[in-house]
Amino acid sequence: MKKNILVIPGDGIGPEVTTWGKAALEKIAEIFNHEFIFDEALMGHAAIEVTGEPLPDETLEKARKSDAILFGAIGHAKYDNDPSLKVRPEQGLLKIRKELGLFANLRPILLFDELLQASSIKPEILRGTDILFFRELTGDVYFGEKTRSEDRNTASDLMIYHRYEVERIAHKAYQAAQQRSKRLCSVDKANVLESSRLWRETVQEIAKQYPDVETEHMFIDNAAMQLIKNPKKFDVVLTANLFGDILTDEASQIAGSMGMLASASVGESTGFFEPIHGSAHDITGKDLANPLASILSAALMLEIGFGLKEEAKLLVDTIDEVLKDGFRTNDIADENTNRFKVLGTAEMGKLVLK
Amino acid sequence: MKKNILVIPGDGIGPEVTTWGKAALEKIAEIFNHEFIFDEALMGHAAIEVTGEPLPDETLEKARKSDAILFGAIGHAKYDNDPSLKVRPEQGLLKIRKELGLFANLRPILLFDELLQASSIKPEILRGTDILFFRELTGDVYFGEKTRSEDRNTASDLMIYHRYEVERIAHKAYQAAQQRSKRLCSVDKANVLESSRLWRETVQEIAKQYPDVETEHMFIDNAAMQLIKNPKKFDVVLTANLFGDILTDEASQIAGSMGMLASASVGESTGFFEPIHGSAHDITGKDLANPLASILSAALMLEIGFGLKEEAKLLVDTIDEVLKDGFRTNDIADENTNRFKVLGTAEMGKLVLK
Ligand SMILES: CC(C)[C@H](C(=O)O)[C@@H](O)C(=O)O
Ligand SMILES: CC(C)[C@H](C(=O)O)[C@@H](O)C(=O)O
Repeated sequence: MKKNILVIPGDGIGPEVTTWGKAALEKIAEIFNHEFIFDEALMGHAAIEVTGEPLPDETLEKARKSDAILFGAIGHAKYDNDPSLKVRPEQGLLKIRKELGLFANLRPILLFDELLQASSIKPEILRGTDILFFRELTGDVYFGEKTRSEDRNTASDLMIYHRYEVERIAHKAYQAAQQRSKRLCSVDKANVLESSRLWRETVQEIAKQYPDVETEHMFIDNAAMQLIKNPKKFDVVLTANLFGDILTDEASQIAGSMGMLASASVGESTGFFEPIHGSAHDITGKDLANPLASILSAALMLEIGFGLKEEAKLLVDTIDEVLKDGFRTNDIADENTNRFKVLGTAEMGKLVLK
Repeated sequence: MKKNILVIPGDGIGPEVTTWGKAALEKIAEIFNHEFIFDEALMGHAAIEVTGEPLPDETLEKARKSDAILFGAIGHAKYDNDPSLKVRPEQGLLKIRKELGLFANLRPILLFDELLQASSIKPEILRGTDILFFRELTGDVYFGEKTRSEDRNTASDLMIYHRYEVERIAHKAYQAAQQRSKRLCSVDKANVLESSRLWRETVQEIAKQYPDVETEHMFIDNAAMQLIKNPKKFDVVLTANLFGDILTDEASQIAGSMGMLASASVGESTGFFEPIHGSAHDITGKDLANPLASILSAALMLEIGFGLKEEAKLLVDTIDEVLKDGFRTNDIADENTNRFKVLGTAEMGKLVLK
């Protein structure tokens, strides 16, 4: 198979982890005799520094031409500390999601047995959990009109949904639920928000087309609670953009660490694959970041982007083995970890490749 | 001390738990020789059934005249299942919050040692946690303009903040932080939302007036994760209305159960005290609800509403004792609980009063 892959390392720990996601893809190409042609591009703070823009035209053009994109992370403390800055790294990520029509963000909560202890949640609560989030990614308050009054004392963001936006992601989520345990939980705040009422109405309609799937509707506040109280009760979870952002970060504790979770954004064409962790300024350049989420992003690219199941499985199994052998990065180590087996980013990356 | 207290039982388990909150206040009046004069009023589905309105004028008038309000819960499955209904129970709660100017919702995450095991989170992660949430309660996407297009295919809610709204709750939160461990975490999504950027800017300004308090700003997605990863790192948490709704429900797992948490809404005049749990249709009328959150709401009324610290402490200490004696309601029982000590709503209420 011949594929063009665009690598966008981005900001913070993005470059240091993406190196290993890319290396994993190279290794897979070698083993399975595929031809993966790589290109690289700038986005976020890294792009602002060079071009003044968080998403340079050149990056967008390359993205459109590629078959899949491997992304690192975005964001920089400078902008976080100064909310008044007009040009911001995150605008690059939001724009590329919108421009490529990446309306469905899949976030599987993959639980490695070996990491049951790494979580703050009790192992007996976690064991057996297997959740697949479908987060809507190109609508909601993320993309609604933003205003700031002239005196700068009033600011707003429009939380807005169109029926077709809810329908298309709902279909994807229901189709996935049919392949899994046939349960779907749709999350909203329909007791307060009109956009959530449209959301709920629409999901209720779509549900009729999937009579084999059991649908539950849950308010976001309750979902945030249930998710840690009893994660096993969830299978496919369907959410709007903002609620999905919050719930999936929260759910990362189920997997032991944010450093273990990857996501796939799909929609109209090119798929976009990235760790769910952020740029993590505090550990950037310290060889402390966990490269496994980037390698798992590569696995998602193989599976969802290219339909290469066996190749994806090899990566996941290899990570499983490395964990079984007791190796950990700092974020997933606990008091029982042999301290000689706590590895830096590069050592962990190398080990998986071997 | 003479006080007029309005009791609004509301919907679902509201009435059955509020009975015990009220009884606790009566008992305290008796012991400490206060005069509490009670009145009752309708709100939510209960009020719609009788008057057609979720917040009848009569209830609002009584509320304005009272010194404090003890509220139960709101909501009904009928409306949850039919998002198209125009008159909805929750409108009553939102309107009374707005009309009484209850802009600050305080939600202490009170951890009873005996319940460390009742949580899905590991006891060693929880032990020592003590968080006080300040949730803004009369602004945000809850109160911004709502629209629905004529073809009903587009719906929106305006997420909006004015600087003064952020300032007044920030002052309250900082003042509380000064009395506690002098740490404040402000939660927003300033990397995406303009209203969050106003929020962050404003908090940064207010922070300068409280140089003795250490301020941290955190994105909501990260906060949802950190809260269960390492709850001890939080002390005072300051949030907008929607983010606070989500985080405090999530945080209820820290306290073992939603059935254990009370909240105080304060602002311009009369204080409003309620459990953070909802109407819980599924267990309504089954004598399964936990009355402790309502009794703790009564304790908050005594402490925050009337400045009666000793009286409040007596209620909290009594609950502590009952728990130490091994008594539990269903929601906080675990496999180690003596099953003869698992009590219904009424038995638990009576036991605390004794
Ligand atoms: C960086 C930020 C804009 C982004 C989001 O909120 O979508 C991130 O948190 C994510 O979840 O991918
Ligand atoms: C019932 C609902 C309107 C309410 C809210 O969202 O504020 C509740 O969840 C709460 O937290 O008090």
